[in-house]
Amino acid sequence: MTTTVDHDAQQVIVEEYTSIFRDYPAGVAVVTADPGDGPVALVASSLSSLSAAPPYLAFSISDATTAAPAVGRARTVVLHIFGADRIDLVRHLARSGSDRFSDTERWTRLPTGEPLFLGARGWLRGEVERRVRAGTATLNVVRVLETGRRAGDSAHRPLVYHDRTWHELGAHSHVDA
Amino acid sequence: MTTTVDHDAQQVIVEEYTSIFRDYPAGVAVVTADPGDGPVALVASSLSSLSAAPPYLAFSISDATTAAPAVGRARTVVLHIFGADRIDLVRHLARSGSDRFSDTERWTRLPTGEPLFLGARGWLRGEVERRVRAGTATLNVVRVLETGRRAGDSAHRPLVYHDRTWHELGAHSHVDA
Repeated sequence: MTTTVDHDAQQVIVEEYTSIFRDYPAGVAVVTADPGDGPVALVASSLSSLSAAPPYLAFSISDATTAAPAVGRARTVVLHIFGADRIDLVRHLARSGSDRFSDTERWTRLPTGEPLFLGARGWLRGEVERRVRAGTATLNVVRVLETGRRAGDSAHRPLVYHDRTWHELGAHSHVDA
Repeated sequence: MTTTVDHDAQQVIVEEYTSIFRDYPAGVAVVTADPGDGPVALVASSLSSLSAAPPYLAFSISDATTAAPAVGRARTVVLHIFGADRIDLVRHLARSGSDRFSDTERWTRLPTGEPLFLGARGWLRGEVERRVRAGTATLNVVRVLETGRRAGDSAHRPLVYHDRTWHELGAHSHVDA
């Protein structure tokens, strides 16, 4: 009986965990890599800044993600941050089963070989220094080696993911003091 | 001369890194802990979900944060997610030098001892299983042991942090297809 009770309690935690994170908004980043056998891309809502000097960031990938094994083998990755002006590209890359690299006008390769999608507000190339397993995901700790920003940029419209919908920040979403 | 050039290149990366992450929006969470010598609280924009079953999450703390040493010694932590209806509390907790626990009506303790601020949309209590150093920050990998949600809740107004301002998501921020 104890086992049953514990199992039920565990199930409640999993359900509450899921519903709490469904309520939690996050920035989005496009992750690309090529471990040597072809480019992969995915959309992650787990990017966060760790340290500016020296520059480190973190992101995680669920085992359920198609690109997880390839990213797990890659020495380097690129993280792209797109604004709402590129929502069509982000949606396309996020869609399961998308042929993410079929439109060759949308991406190129960095001199170091990694795939780079064009039009990002900013991008960061780095080396995965640590991979930490946690449950059914891998957390990647990345030392940033190179960065890029779009030149002569107009006003940024930051993109946010929340409960399977996309949102755009601006004066309309600002909370006054 | 090479050293100078490398140093300059490194400086450019740090500056671009900072400006790229200034453009990057994030959810916010209030982290509390008590390693045995008193409660601490901080507002983090680095919370992310790792795995639902088993439930794991991650968050990081900069060495510059006053509460960093106490959180680093704590075996367990609580992560709170507040909506825009509690922006006053979140602002207060985020403010440097705030006496975060002076208003005893705003918080209590869980039976396990951790400080819990009231009114969160959801909270997660967990054990720090791994601490990973990266640059000037510590990344915490937390196994979730207990969760709570506000009962009979009205519509959620998710809170987002971006470029030192607070935003609220809703129909007004939704990006149409």
